[in-house]
Amino acid sequence: MNTLIDSALIESAMQKLEVASYEDLSIRQLVSLVNLFEKESGEEFIHFEIGVPGLPASQVGIDAQKEALDSGVASVYPALEGEPALKQAASKFIRSIIGAEVAPAHCIPTVGSMQGTFATLMAVSALDEKKDTILYIDPGFPVQKTQADVLGIRREAFDVYNYRAEKLAPKLEEYLSTGRIAAILYSNPNNPTWMCLTDDELRTIGEMANKYDAIVIEDLAYITMDFRKDVDPTTGLPTQVSVTPYTDNYVLLMSGSKIFSYAGERIAVTAISDKLFERKSEALKRRFGLPSFGNVFVHKLIYTLSSGVSHSAQMALARMMDQAAEGLYNYRDEVREYANRTERIREILTRHGFHIVYDKDVDEPVGNGFFFTIGYKDMKGGELLGNLLRCGVSGIVLTSTGADYEGIRACSSAIKPHHYDLLDQRLAMFEELVAGA
Amino acid sequence: MNTLIDSALIESAMQKLEVASYEDLSIRQLVSLVNLFEKESGEEFIHFEIGVPGLPASQVGIDAQKEALDSGVASVYPALEGEPALKQAASKFIRSIIGAEVAPAHCIPTVGSMQGTFATLMAVSALDEKKDTILYIDPGFPVQKTQADVLGIRREAFDVYNYRAEKLAPKLEEYLSTGRIAAILYSNPNNPTWMCLTDDELRTIGEMANKYDAIVIEDLAYITMDFRKDVDPTTGLPTQVSVTPYTDNYVLLMSGSKIFSYAGERIAVTAISDKLFERKSEALKRRFGLPSFGNVFVHKLIYTLSSGVSHSAQMALARMMDQAAEGLYNYRDEVREYANRTERIREILTRHGFHIVYDKDVDEPVGNGFFFTIGYKDMKGGELLGNLLRCGVSGIVLTSTGADYEGIRACSSAIKPHHYDLLDQRLAMFEELVAGA
Repeated sequence: MNTLIDSALIESAMQKLEVASYEDLSIRQLVSLVNLFEKESGEEFIHFEIGVPGLPASQVGIDAQKEALDSGVASVYPALEGEPALKQAASKFIRSIIGAEVAPAHCIPTVGSMQGTFATLMAVSALDEKKDTILYIDPGFPVQKTQADVLGIRREAFDVYNYRAEKLAPKLEEYLSTGRIAAILYSNPNNPTWMCLTDDELRTIGEMANKYDAIVIEDLAYITMDFRKDVDPTTGLPTQVSVTPYTDNYVLLMSGSKIFSYAGERIAVTAISDKLFERKSEALKRRFGLPSFGNVFVHKLIYTLSSGVSHSAQMALARMMDQAAEGLYNYRDEVREYANRTERIREILTRHGFHIVYDKDVDEPVGNGFFFTIGYKDMKGGELLGNLLRCGVSGIVLTSTGADYEGIRACSSAIKPHHYDLLDQRLAMFEELVAGA
Repeated sequence: MNTLIDSALIESAMQKLEVASYEDLSIRQLVSLVNLFEKESGEEFIHFEIGVPGLPASQVGIDAQKEALDSGVASVYPALEGEPALKQAASKFIRSIIGAEVAPAHCIPTVGSMQGTFATLMAVSALDEKKDTILYIDPGFPVQKTQADVLGIRREAFDVYNYRAEKLAPKLEEYLSTGRIAAILYSNPNNPTWMCLTDDELRTIGEMANKYDAIVIEDLAYITMDFRKDVDPTTGLPTQVSVTPYTDNYVLLMSGSKIFSYAGERIAVTAISDKLFERKSEALKRRFGLPSFGNVFVHKLIYTLSSGVSHSAQMALARMMDQAAEGLYNYRDEVREYANRTERIREILTRHGFHIVYDKDVDEPVGNGFFFTIGYKDMKGGELLGNLLRCGVSGIVLTSTGADYEGIRACSSAIKPHHYDLLDQRLAMFEELVAGA
């Protein structure tokens, strides 16, 4: 069989990474694996595996960051609670796009949302000793579960695909009624399936969180990137549904990586609801020496994790968020490119017998965006990835994201114009390979 | 009594921070306290409390960082193991300045040495379940102990002042012989006292670490800033003694914050000895799912803590380290300014009845550098800080650094030319205050 990569090379590379199966590979491990395969084969891969921005970083941000460097910020420790300009801008961005009020004081810059999630998981799991579990609404970003594992925090999860709309409340209650759920975590739009929770479903989540005193952790990495939605006709700004109208106990993870293509600088904001920021507990005091959630977050966690966040990158995100909130910077037109790419890729995939695994969003078809999910007949995800890798196409096994369904997470971000034809050829190779097997 | 700040204001501000005594204030809490006092009193403080670089950031770094931003790095996720240019430069810098060999692959960029220490503490404490304790050679940087507390890692410490030279080995053995010490942590030059461990003492630490299988964590934040030492006559480069010749199990924390005045960008390198990087243990595998120290550090810790480090700041540190290692960039001449300031400040302090608490470095007087320690008669550190704050001078209570002796840690970095006269006046006010009390 004529493939790009032979099985033995894949085997030996995985051994070096100390990983037994495709399901156990982290995204970053896959990236390094695929880099190796490209080197060994001399052939370019179709990089479906990683959500690297495939667009240039926002020029608005780069200009602001360079100005900040010229103004001397590189020698000055950033304030632990963040630079005032970014705190103000984040608060304003949240007001304009989501319609929620979070005081600037409670918008805390973090080293990517990765750090924001790490600190949030530490804090929410210490608020109340009886509440020791994080509930993940899956499929989800695998590293957020690795974070819980690294921290030794208990976790539960369910695949939301079969529990949309009115089925969501009873499913949530099944977990929450144990009294052990400290927080509910999800992303919206969803990584990896691009399903979008509706306003009704977010109300359900908020009401359930209130009933059982759980914190809602809403990952807004892809905020406003559901391109089926139009801008608000009165403001002209994009909008995003959120849990914020339905509970006072929330944490919003606002990353600059995707909407502003600023992943390289590791810059984000964790916005903690005003009520949660001020919340005190004896358990927090026992664990961290301070009783309030906000003080623990800033003075114990951000302090010890990294003593704050790149000063110049904060100034970049401040300007991007501020101009976006003012309607002066239409970042959404830049990232809409991903939806166009996904549409073309889906056409090619379908032609070669692939299907979209998570195809429905309640009763609508799932939109085109950054991520999508692909399956091939009844092939298991690990086997599918193994076959695709041999043909120069990579991706993430869906079960590693907590999915109940078999397939691959793919991302359109790394796709360049010449890749459409290449994908076509590689999928033809794939069809031959599996037909021969 | 005529002071700048009255006691009631100090009381109420500390209440808001939820802190009971001066000893319990973190450095960053003190900074925000002092900012408040300046606002309330309308008077500038003498900021002895924080080690912010008091010099502009290295222009070499700023130029490199801006070029990196222009070249498009802001959209590209940094590699978890770090960008090749920085890994190469760090390895070369270590070879030139310390004379040690650490492979570029084992030099891992971190978000400041704060993140490097956090990840290192997590990893070393999981290598062997019986070894659950970090031994701090005190006085030390208080936040490194807060890190252990936040992580729930047991710690021990002793003040090294009375255990220098031949007294060090038996003192170390007292702790190591329990079999519970996972790692020994110290800074050299020492924060807060500016004492410098000698080559003989570092040999002792290395030998003891070998005997009891402990990891040595050497914080080199102030590398080559012992200005009593001259450059190497053959290379013309500054040099630094280190534990590296005496053990194969070490972690070097190399910060860009002080030597390159780059604190604002949160950039550092954690250099893990080749042997430790490859070391495997069943305990690591149980705790983190991977058996080798280096893989855990990169693929479990750096990944989940922040998914890597600002891409542009990595390029800045790469150029600064590379040029310093080549002898093209004499960063040491820039930071020598701190020693000059400390010399003048010490003269003023002595004139007002203050003394240097940690005055001796084995049998030499302690050198002038970034930090120094001050006492006043037999006044306790908390009382001394309380009185100094009322007179517009701040600092850190020494006991919070694990010191057995009473006094204040002071830093010369924020001192500007007009501050010498101001300090003189403030100390006169202090003398009146304590005479009247």
